[in-house]
Amino acid sequence: MNNFEYYRPTRILFGKGMISQLSSLLDKAQKILLLYGGGSVKKNGVYEQVAKALEGYNYSEFGGIEPNPEYETCMKAVELVKRENIEFILAVGGGSTLDAAKFIAAAAKYEGKDPYDIITEEYEVKDALPVGDVITLPATGSEMNGNSVISRASTGRKAAFVSEKVYPEFSIIDPQTTFSLPVRQTVNGIVDTFVHTMEQYCTYDVNTPLQDEWMLGLLRTLIQEGPKALAKPEDYDARANIFWCATCGLNHFMSLGCVQDWATHQIGHELTAFYGLDHGQSLAIILPRLLQNQKLSKSEKLAKLARNVFGVEESVDLKAAGVAIYKIEEFFNFIGMKTHLADYGIDAGEAAEQARKALAMRNVKLGEKGAVTADTAFEIIRNS
Amino acid sequence: MNNFEYYRPTRILFGKGMISQLSSLLDKAQKILLLYGGGSVKKNGVYEQVAKALEGYNYSEFGGIEPNPEYETCMKAVELVKRENIEFILAVGGGSTLDAAKFIAAAAKYEGKDPYDIITEEYEVKDALPVGDVITLPATGSEMNGNSVISRASTGRKAAFVSEKVYPEFSIIDPQTTFSLPVRQTVNGIVDTFVHTMEQYCTYDVNTPLQDEWMLGLLRTLIQEGPKALAKPEDYDARANIFWCATCGLNHFMSLGCVQDWATHQIGHELTAFYGLDHGQSLAIILPRLLQNQKLSKSEKLAKLARNVFGVEESVDLKAAGVAIYKIEEFFNFIGMKTHLADYGIDAGEAAEQARKALAMRNVKLGEKGAVTADTAFEIIRNS
Repeated sequence: MNNFEYYRPTRILFGKGMISQLSSLLDKAQKILLLYGGGSVKKNGVYEQVAKALEGYNYSEFGGIEPNPEYETCMKAVELVKRENIEFILAVGGGSTLDAAKFIAAAAKYEGKDPYDIITEEYEVKDALPVGDVITLPATGSEMNGNSVISRASTGRKAAFVSEKVYPEFSIIDPQTTFSLPVRQTVNGIVDTFVHTMEQYCTYDVNTPLQDEWMLGLLRTLIQEGPKALAKPEDYDARANIFWCATCGLNHFMSLGCVQDWATHQIGHELTAFYGLDHGQSLAIILPRLLQNQKLSKSEKLAKLARNVFGVEESVDLKAAGVAIYKIEEFFNFIGMKTHLADYGIDAGEAAEQARKALAMRNVKLGEKGAVTADTAFEIIRNS
Repeated sequence: MNNFEYYRPTRILFGKGMISQLSSLLDKAQKILLLYGGGSVKKNGVYEQVAKALEGYNYSEFGGIEPNPEYETCMKAVELVKRENIEFILAVGGGSTLDAAKFIAAAAKYEGKDPYDIITEEYEVKDALPVGDVITLPATGSEMNGNSVISRASTGRKAAFVSEKVYPEFSIIDPQTTFSLPVRQTVNGIVDTFVHTMEQYCTYDVNTPLQDEWMLGLLRTLIQEGPKALAKPEDYDARANIFWCATCGLNHFMSLGCVQDWATHQIGHELTAFYGLDHGQSLAIILPRLLQNQKLSKSEKLAKLARNVFGVEESVDLKAAGVAIYKIEEFFNFIGMKTHLADYGIDAGEAAEQARKALAMRNVKLGEKGAVTADTAFEIIRNS
């Protein structure tokens, strides 16, 4: 097991009716910014529950955060935060809204020349406004981590920053808020969670049997519960199980001491930036081809997955690894997720070339062994 | 899944050489109390590493915390804390030292008449000094929870309190510190972790598949790694895996939203209080008999355990449950843990009567359904 540090001071309130606890978590003396997205929270009753809990509190609103939150939109919110002396940001909605809240919280306290610095790899966030959330989409795990992914239209770049300073103080999860999710978003969330887990699991063994048990257990649970929620959108337990998988899928607890990958995400971000694919869609396209490309070096973990998650009895690791990749893609297709660029009318050759240029400019060496270069990404996308 | 709240702001530093990070976690302006037990930390080199990290810091020492920490000893430390205006308590050693630190931290800020109130169920801790630790025994999970168990010689009572106010600010875990553990303590720790997991897992199903996967995965890992550490005490990975199991076994993360039991612990505490049995020893005696006594109501979970952990193929739940109980006791015996009172020269009938009296006085209804009364405990112990 590798050495690790873990610190995650977010308070989680999970379950039916938990939004009513919101007022007990906020300070009446603080000026709050209520941040949300495209308005789905006004349709599904969540806004109403939040507004009720905020009665008597001093708050402003900012809506219109995009599904892949835009730097430019976030900066408008930062202006509002400064103008109105906001002291606490309450994000209500999906991971995108929460990611935006984290960036806005850091940008409001940023004192340098260009707040986009926050998203570049060299900069370390020194201070941020406190953030809390009512999270309504099981996918990003943003509710229990310090990650934030921000897009910038003017440069076509989608990039992440990570900081302890933007851990949510609290996250409220009521699985009932996901009953009305469109099928597409439910599927995206299942795939996103699946791939988060794969990025943490599918590298090479450093003797972490408990962590492997937990990651494989999460994959098994997703495969079992995902179709239930799709078949019966108001199945509370299925929705709760999927949401808890999503939160645990990226609070990094289950993979402490393990070697991680994240190449699928970084290549996927390029597809989202160029073609506007949903994050989950981009991952479902890249993962099978990346695993195929890296099969030899990932064969031990893939074979373990084949046997433990899909019940494959093949004893040769490399053969079992191939079956695992096939079974993963089959699962994505089974729940209605497409796994080829052509399914979205995108030319794979052109996409591959676009991504190669962008990744070569940053001179990337992705993956757990730095083996995924811009040229490798080209191969992976061309095969997609 | 049941509703739940989770908050665990402890920073974990896990791995080789992590004790050297201690100074970066402490404030030089604070007066620190260095708390430890019977002196094993002076033999295994941990005290030396801590003293080195504390060079230039302002600290006092208090040694001699017992394996089942005594209220009377703790109160002597509280006097020292008050006399010397201690502002931070650093526990170095096993869970007992850390449990004592938590009580001392709360008692130093207690303003009522009798600090023993803290340990009674009615009292809620309002404030406590900050606590941090270098934990050297994988067993109690105290390094990532707010639990503390304190014994009181004058009344023969061993009891616990739980408070968010005493979560360690940080816990440093270097598995190398466990290389020199006596076999008895290694075995105690494995059994303690096993039973902690059973208390959280083995009740009745409320549709928590991820949590069940994680708890069963932890049991499988313990069964796999425990014997390795016993066979080769300096096997770093086996020691690391056992320690991480112990921490995860009682930080309550893996059982969020589940129904819990804890009757084995409460009955076991009586045996420790009367006969001075090690905590782990008392649990190994009680658990198999308690499961036997409650087999009918726990049969679904026991059968799942039999199949998933022990590979039992029996399809009738009640029969599989019986095999699970047998297999658990067999595992305890295999790693060298005795499972009968007679093994320690204790008369089961007498012990049963003693415990019945003590538990009847408190009118207990233990277990997930409140079905374990003083009379049930009598039956369980008499069969031990």
